[in-house]
Amino acid sequence: MNTKVFLTEDEMPRQWYNLAADLPSPMQPPLGPDGNPISPDMLAPVFPMNLIEQEVSQERWIDIPEGVQELLRLWRPSPLYRALRLEKALGTPARIYYKNEGVSPAGSHKPNTAVAQAWYNKQFGIKRITTETGAGQWGSALAFACSLLGLECKVFMVRISFDQKPYRKLMMQTWNANCVPSPSPETNAGRDILKKMPDTPGSLGIAISEAIEAAVTDQSGQTRYSLGSVLNHVLLHQTIIGQEAKKQLAKAGEKKVDAVIACAGGGSNFAGIAFPFISDKINGADIAFYACEPTSCPTLTRGPFAYDFGDVASTTPLLPMHTLGHTFVPPPIHAGGLRYHGMAPLVSQTVVEGLVTPRAFDQLECYEAAVQWARTEGFIPAPETSHAIACVIDEAKKAKEAGQEKVILFNWSGHGLMDLNGYGAYFSGKLTNYALPDKDLKESLAPLDKLPKAKSIKTGKW
Amino acid sequence: MNTKVFLTEDEMPRQWYNLAADLPSPMQPPLGPDGNPISPDMLAPVFPMNLIEQEVSQERWIDIPEGVQELLRLWRPSPLYRALRLEKALGTPARIYYKNEGVSPAGSHKPNTAVAQAWYNKQFGIKRITTETGAGQWGSALAFACSLLGLECKVFMVRISFDQKPYRKLMMQTWNANCVPSPSPETNAGRDILKKMPDTPGSLGIAISEAIEAAVTDQSGQTRYSLGSVLNHVLLHQTIIGQEAKKQLAKAGEKKVDAVIACAGGGSNFAGIAFPFISDKINGADIAFYACEPTSCPTLTRGPFAYDFGDVASTTPLLPMHTLGHTFVPPPIHAGGLRYHGMAPLVSQTVVEGLVTPRAFDQLECYEAAVQWARTEGFIPAPETSHAIACVIDEAKKAKEAGQEKVILFNWSGHGLMDLNGYGAYFSGKLTNYALPDKDLKESLAPLDKLPKAKSIKTGKW
Repeated sequence: MNTKVFLTEDEMPRQWYNLAADLPSPMQPPLGPDGNPISPDMLAPVFPMNLIEQEVSQERWIDIPEGVQELLRLWRPSPLYRALRLEKALGTPARIYYKNEGVSPAGSHKPNTAVAQAWYNKQFGIKRITTETGAGQWGSALAFACSLLGLECKVFMVRISFDQKPYRKLMMQTWNANCVPSPSPETNAGRDILKKMPDTPGSLGIAISEAIEAAVTDQSGQTRYSLGSVLNHVLLHQTIIGQEAKKQLAKAGEKKVDAVIACAGGGSNFAGIAFPFISDKINGADIAFYACEPTSCPTLTRGPFAYDFGDVASTTPLLPMHTLGHTFVPPPIHAGGLRYHGMAPLVSQTVVEGLVTPRAFDQLECYEAAVQWARTEGFIPAPETSHAIACVIDEAKKAKEAGQEKVILFNWSGHGLMDLNGYGAYFSGKLTNYALPDKDLKESLAPLDKLPKAKSIKTGKW
Repeated sequence: MNTKVFLTEDEMPRQWYNLAADLPSPMQPPLGPDGNPISPDMLAPVFPMNLIEQEVSQERWIDIPEGVQELLRLWRPSPLYRALRLEKALGTPARIYYKNEGVSPAGSHKPNTAVAQAWYNKQFGIKRITTETGAGQWGSALAFACSLLGLECKVFMVRISFDQKPYRKLMMQTWNANCVPSPSPETNAGRDILKKMPDTPGSLGIAISEAIEAAVTDQSGQTRYSLGSVLNHVLLHQTIIGQEAKKQLAKAGEKKVDAVIACAGGGSNFAGIAFPFISDKINGADIAFYACEPTSCPTLTRGPFAYDFGDVASTTPLLPMHTLGHTFVPPPIHAGGLRYHGMAPLVSQTVVEGLVTPRAFDQLECYEAAVQWARTEGFIPAPETSHAIACVIDEAKKAKEAGQEKVILFNWSGHGLMDLNGYGAYFSGKLTNYALPDKDLKESLAPLDKLPKAKSIKTGKW
């Protein structure tokens, strides 16, 4: 029995899939500080216009330029794996498949959008891209992409991660990027914070403010900012994952898939594998979708659908999304990529419309799942990926109890070789779960009351 | 143009290739402490008999058991890559291909033999395997293999690496292995050293002594020792790399290969890609083979072919090999896997017979090559692999000067994500080269005079 299904490079998808074209209810627009919908040109100082056009596009299919395809071919199509050894260990009748996105040079799915964004920026005449990174996955991916295209890359890395994860900084440096701890003395935002709190560990919110400021204040006009998740065009670039998976499942002889699973932080990795299949569900297919998040940062499972800012400093447009409130401070779980108060508007809307079921998992159960995975399937998963694995194991066990054949597909979003400290903490018994008391949640949601309200969306009939 | 050539799992080679069957001159036997050839049964306390049989086999082809194939399918066949982006950056007419062995769960070629050795041990009724590791690649690979087969694994890791590379230890722990710093209080060898030198950083020689002792003194008889390179059966297991490469080059439309290149520490990674092609050279094909080593540990380029011990403590049989003398202490280069005083007898003999050309590269030029690679081809190479890359770049430049189309194949033996400190040292300008003065070499070779002499081998006529 085969463990892997490959596609040739010729079989790589040539278009991205835009779920916005197929959603039962239209997306609600981002709002500016005045509460009115923002226009594309208001984003022009931040993003290049070709990406802004993608951000607002309602086209179902968007061609992947040959220049981007050429970059993607460095590691894509990624293999579809059958988790034969885990199935055997669980004694489940379920057939478990996963896309191994850890094969990219940066070790995760992030380069799928990084190379596309870098390419579009270069086409637009941009010479320099700024971004922020928390755990380091996104900063690494963008550094890698810019290196291939000869663009300058500046990464503001949350100071505590910068200090704790020197290997991430070295990866970025190897790819010729300039990675500085945030808050930095290089921006007004950074200097202000440093003056008030010289010993601050930093935060993603501060780093975002610095990266945007560094982009929009560059007088040459040749610098733009780049974001690794949340936005429509970022999710769009990830849909190549699910499209490849469809072709590979067909090659493996599977006629249908019963459950599609991925972890969800900002939402791009979930969107990547799920959106092409959600299209089938909208057209009548019977598929369950599980977006998996930490119980300690339960954006989809406990946060409302509301207009909120993307960053702590309230500098971004207001986005319609599931949110815990933009002042929410997530506990220090090791899955840094899932520590975000909001969720991509597109993913949020699939939940609101009842297409996707969110599920939350405790940190300890995720590491238990990750270790079982590593000892059966070999590859050591990223702490984010372990949330999807916990869900897969749960579904596979249910299938066993029900004696039910079932096809489960999930996104193995990346390897954990740069994040082994979490495993160390788990083995030493120092790892804990984090509850989020109702009282704390209520407090963090309070600022939403002063913001414009999102319209309620009528649930479809699937 | 395609970047990658895949093989299906059905196309994976079913046999290993044993170069010993085709060498122009017969191999000289390992000798015991009395200077007489050792018999297979003398190795029985150390290795299981099924692997000892492979060690002494003269069969050209040895079947890969289905149980081993099943384990290999977890990541094999590995992709053959065309380094299109590096070719372009160099402006070379050479076509550069590489086997990406970094796709294995442990990130290097080492698991090719680790899963085979673990499987044969299990077949023989062994429950527990001991080994040593320096930089950590081999210990990780064996831990991974034992984890898949439910075998206990104990790794004696050189103390200074144990302290400097906590991620390696965590990898092994994730795969359920017991990794202890060496010298340890668990063996006589370790206790003796600790008594004399409580603060010693340890060495591979000490760790080997501990691992062998732990295996042979286990009264249950269910423990054996495992080695990650040097021995014939280890090299044999790696020949799947070169066999796959042959099929993939044919798929890529290449009718011949002009140069085959790999780094050489103990010799298994070089043997893996080169031996199946050396067979062609013996049969008349015109192929250059380059075994690449550090100038600071110039086993093949400056060491004689002689009988020598495999370890510092002189506990192993005497092996006929290129050697710098078993008391040679290599400088602290980052390519830990290339810091070995000897070279696999099979590889040594290909050099003696003029089939293979050894070449040595300085540490700084290797990091320069590695960084150029990462910024064009994306994947960050291991410090060992960078020695092959330095050679490839040199050959590609020569092809450019000569205006000569040329097919270069090399073994990208592993990724450097666990070894980024070396890159950090390079970027900070702290990295240096290390010369080995003739005087020091002479001193380290002196002990060989008291050992039996290897016969001189008549060079063949190719």
